Amino acid sequence: MVVSEEQPAAMEGDAASKKAAKKAAKAAEKQQKKAEHKAASGQSQPQGDTSEADVSEGRYGVLKLIQSTGENRDRVYTDVKQLGVNLSGQSVWVRARLQTSRAKGKQCFAVLRQSSSTVQLLINVSDERRVSKQMVKFTGNINKESIIDVYATVVKTASPVESCTIRDVELSAEQVWLVSAARAQLPLLVEDAARPEKNDDPEALKIRVHQDTRLDNRILDLRTPANQAIFRIEAGVCRLFREILTNKGFVEIHTPKIISAASEGGANVFTVSYFKSSAYLAQSPQLYKQMAIAADFDKVFTVGAVFRAEDSNTHRHLTEFVGLDLEMSFRHHYHEVLYTIADTLTEMFKGLRDQFATEIEAVGQQFRVEPFKYLEPPLRLEFPQAIQMLKEAGVTVGEEDDLSTPDEKLLGRLVRAKYDTDFYILDKYPLAVRPFYTMPDPNNPRVSNSYDMFMRGEEILSGAQRIHDPDFLTERAKHHGIDISKIAAYIESFRLGCPPHAGGGIGMERVVMLYLGLDNIRKTSMFPRDPKRVTP
Amino acid sequence: MVVSEEQPAAMEGDAASKKAAKKAAKAAEKQQKKAEHKAASGQSQPQGDTSEADVSEGRYGVLKLIQSTGENRDRVYTDVKQLGVNLSGQSVWVRARLQTSRAKGKQCFAVLRQSSSTVQLLINVSDERRVSKQMVKFTGNINKESIIDVYATVVKTASPVESCTIRDVELSAEQVWLVSAARAQLPLLVEDAARPEKNDDPEALKIRVHQDTRLDNRILDLRTPANQAIFRIEAGVCRLFREILTNKGFVEIHTPKIISAASEGGANVFTVSYFKSSAYLAQSPQLYKQMAIAADFDKVFTVGAVFRAEDSNTHRHLTEFVGLDLEMSFRHHYHEVLYTIADTLTEMFKGLRDQFATEIEAVGQQFRVEPFKYLEPPLRLEFPQAIQMLKEAGVTVGEEDDLSTPDEKLLGRLVRAKYDTDFYILDKYPLAVRPFYTMPDPNNPRVSNSYDMFMRGEEILSGAQRIHDPDFLTERAKHHGIDISKIAAYIESFRLGCPPHAGGGIGMERVVMLYLGLDNIRKTSMFPRDPKRVTP
Repeated sequence: MVVSEEQPAAMEGDAASKKAAKKAAKAAEKQQKKAEHKAASGQSQPQGDTSEADVSEGRYGVLKLIQSTGENRDRVYTDVKQLGVNLSGQSVWVRARLQTSRAKGKQCFAVLRQSSSTVQLLINVSDERRVSKQMVKFTGNINKESIIDVYATVVKTASPVESCTIRDVELSAEQVWLVSAARAQLPLLVEDAARPEKNDDPEALKIRVHQDTRLDNRILDLRTPANQAIFRIEAGVCRLFREILTNKGFVEIHTPKIISAASEGGANVFTVSYFKSSAYLAQSPQLYKQMAIAADFDKVFTVGAVFRAEDSNTHRHLTEFVGLDLEMSFRHHYHEVLYTIADTLTEMFKGLRDQFATEIEAVGQQFRVEPFKYLEPPLRLEFPQAIQMLKEAGVTVGEEDDLSTPDEKLLGRLVRAKYDTDFYILDKYPLAVRPFYTMPDPNNPRVSNSYDMFMRGEEILSGAQRIHDPDFLTERAKHHGIDISKIAAYIESFRLGCPPHAGGGIGMERVVMLYLGLDNIRKTSMFPRDPKRVTP
Repeated sequence: MVVSEEQPAAMEGDAASKKAAKKAAKAAEKQQKKAEHKAASGQSQPQGDTSEADVSEGRYGVLKLIQSTGENRDRVYTDVKQLGVNLSGQSVWVRARLQTSRAKGKQCFAVLRQSSSTVQLLINVSDERRVSKQMVKFTGNINKESIIDVYATVVKTASPVESCTIRDVELSAEQVWLVSAARAQLPLLVEDAARPEKNDDPEALKIRVHQDTRLDNRILDLRTPANQAIFRIEAGVCRLFREILTNKGFVEIHTPKIISAASEGGANVFTVSYFKSSAYLAQSPQLYKQMAIAADFDKVFTVGAVFRAEDSNTHRHLTEFVGLDLEMSFRHHYHEVLYTIADTLTEMFKGLRDQFATEIEAVGQQFRVEPFKYLEPPLRLEFPQAIQMLKEAGVTVGEEDDLSTPDEKLLGRLVRAKYDTDFYILDKYPLAVRPFYTMPDPNNPRVSNSYDMFMRGEEILSGAQRIHDPDFLTERAKHHGIDISKIAAYIESFRLGCPPHAGGGIGMERVVMLYLGLDNIRKTSMFPRDPKRVTP
């Protein structure tokens, strides 16, 4: 059991008596000594050949477990990405992973990796530089993916090192210390997991790591340069979403994930045992963000986990994802909100392009990433226009039916061809295909004040003007066959005076997937959850 | 059922056939006409006396349901907080809540409220300004908390209006339109809910709204100036936490809330039914943020829901709260992390002071808010020092026991008296009172590399250096009597090479509560969850 920090209840028992505490301390002392002994003798790791005098003695080996003694505290480390000709001739400390190593007689070639950056490391036997055969052997025997401390001279290379991101210099080792050992047999190699999946190089190695193998061994998989970049871009999506909305006067709120049966219920909901009763996991913050509007917060957003107990095993469904939700009161027309959302997304696309060029390129090294296109102002189409375009392309589709996923994708291609944009808004959906709380169009009761937004032909946002009149809302709910008693609290909130409002919900993982043009949402969820996966 | 937006499965059924869609549209048309009729005739709201000619005709009444017709779209509204003598003599449109109104013969005094700002509104019968008796009566009969549109002249007041936040001007109405009606009988009055709870004024009205009544009617309660301010400050806490850490090179991650039995389990965990199996709600992102460190993200933070199935009904426990968690690899000493966290909090305190002065003052109008004191650099005490201080104050406390909540509070007062700070770090807890994954002190195996941080004598953060050696971790887990098979995946993640790291978890609601000096965590959770409450 991993005990949580804040209320370490399970640990409190240990503190119950002084006796127990003392016993525990003694045992810990023993364990610590054992660990230190192991580290000193390097039991689990290769040691140099001790049969002859070693000029490198004290300059390599297994480092004692870093336990915060204060030792080496003032040592300055250099980041791999900072290595360059300007440091040529200088000696630096670097802590990095040993990605690969190959010892051959008197020398060892290795590659060090730090996040997305790699550099070549050489260990050459040399009396002058006090590098012994034993030290070369020791380094050659370190398991891949182990973390090592290296003290080395920065050396300008004669020709660029094509296999590394740092090409103009390499490191010549003087000291090598094993900080944390990886095990010998790894379930996958980061090198393999990082191989380009673009098919334009017929000479390329065809080794592929299966998606499930990656996810089963997510820690290793996440170490690839593409994954290091994807999750930094994802952090950027969230940061930009919040920054842009905060600048527009929105207030961040937090909505409960555990909800009572009364407010939501029925299909696609996970049940939670709640003390002697039961509760549900929120499928969206819908009700709560509307309540915040009724409570005078005017413009709100929330970023948080959303749960769908839907048995959909597709490339774009997760049972738990991060929702970027917003809701906003408006004066007279829901397009005030529609364009606020669209502008937010456009600003986000610009922010990603400008602030994450390096990361986007890193993803492009492994996956085929086409630049994401958008228009300013954004393209807004109305539902009948979409139907018309699909009909012209030979698709049979009803004017009051919802669009199927393949139709949406086709429409995305048609829009791209006609308007040169990967992002557009589809406005004025048929009323019949939208939730009961959607405001009908004032001029055509078969149409609604609702919209979806699309990236590369896939829906990333669904939104609408909501009905803020309690009686009208009740009528619409009844029409949809909804049990009014189950949503009494929801309807009641509009009897306290509520401004007209609209909003929308965005799936974060979808935005990242579609912005980069990736093929599976599991690539943009750090620890994805689907009907078949709740680990790691 | 409130249907979620992104995958409105329940709605898809309605779209199945065109027939159903058409039927739905017709019904909607009918409902809409009915709603319009109701609005036009003002069925649910008072109307003026129609027995005599009305000079105000067309200048007051119930506004048609705002359904985005495009009408009045270009009308410019003025915010209440912007009203001042510089606008004196001008006519402006204002949309606001009617907080109170009192009609008496030929005039009506009202107070308009918009978030935390209030202004006085006068409606005086006047032929010249086309204000009729009927219009005054209509306004006087509008229910409190309704939203109205007012067209009015800004008038300089002879003496300051003490009862409003806008004191130097008032509004003289020319038009009054009811936008959204509140019901006549409200479960609580915002005026009452906003009354000062400070006891220094013996003349003050002693009306109190009970905490449960507030929470049962949270939408109304949230409209008080103090609550409007509290949740803006809370948004600030989250924003500052993220901004400060992002500037320090941290990457935001998202960790799953649904977890398998294998990684966590046992006490205080909510169980979720997960398709044909079951799963659990994460008590903390502990394991996942450590995995992100093992996956080379170096410094990570995450903001998200955390769940504790603990039957604690205290002023400071919630079953669902927002965790501000961070984890960071370090080079040699966990104090690199400890001071990064402490600096982050100090910067946050400064940001709140500088950016939220108005909001802090608004909270101070209702609650006794003492300015929050902190030191630079922050105060770090070691556990034995705390024990010594408590002993000197006459408290009996064991040197290897954890501190009780009353002892923590007393210690907070002693520290405040001695060092003049409301924030401090308590370092080097006894090993026996911390979770199994806590790194022991290298010089004293009874002590650990762990720390808590306190605000006004209450714990807001718990953190430590974690054991990153799998064998040592296994030994410590066994010593704690933990079933190793249940945490195999957790231990395994350290066999892939992991840098030394430390971190901590902060309770967001606690930070806001204690920064402001409030007495109950339910005041800083918008929709709090405790063992007895899952609504609204």
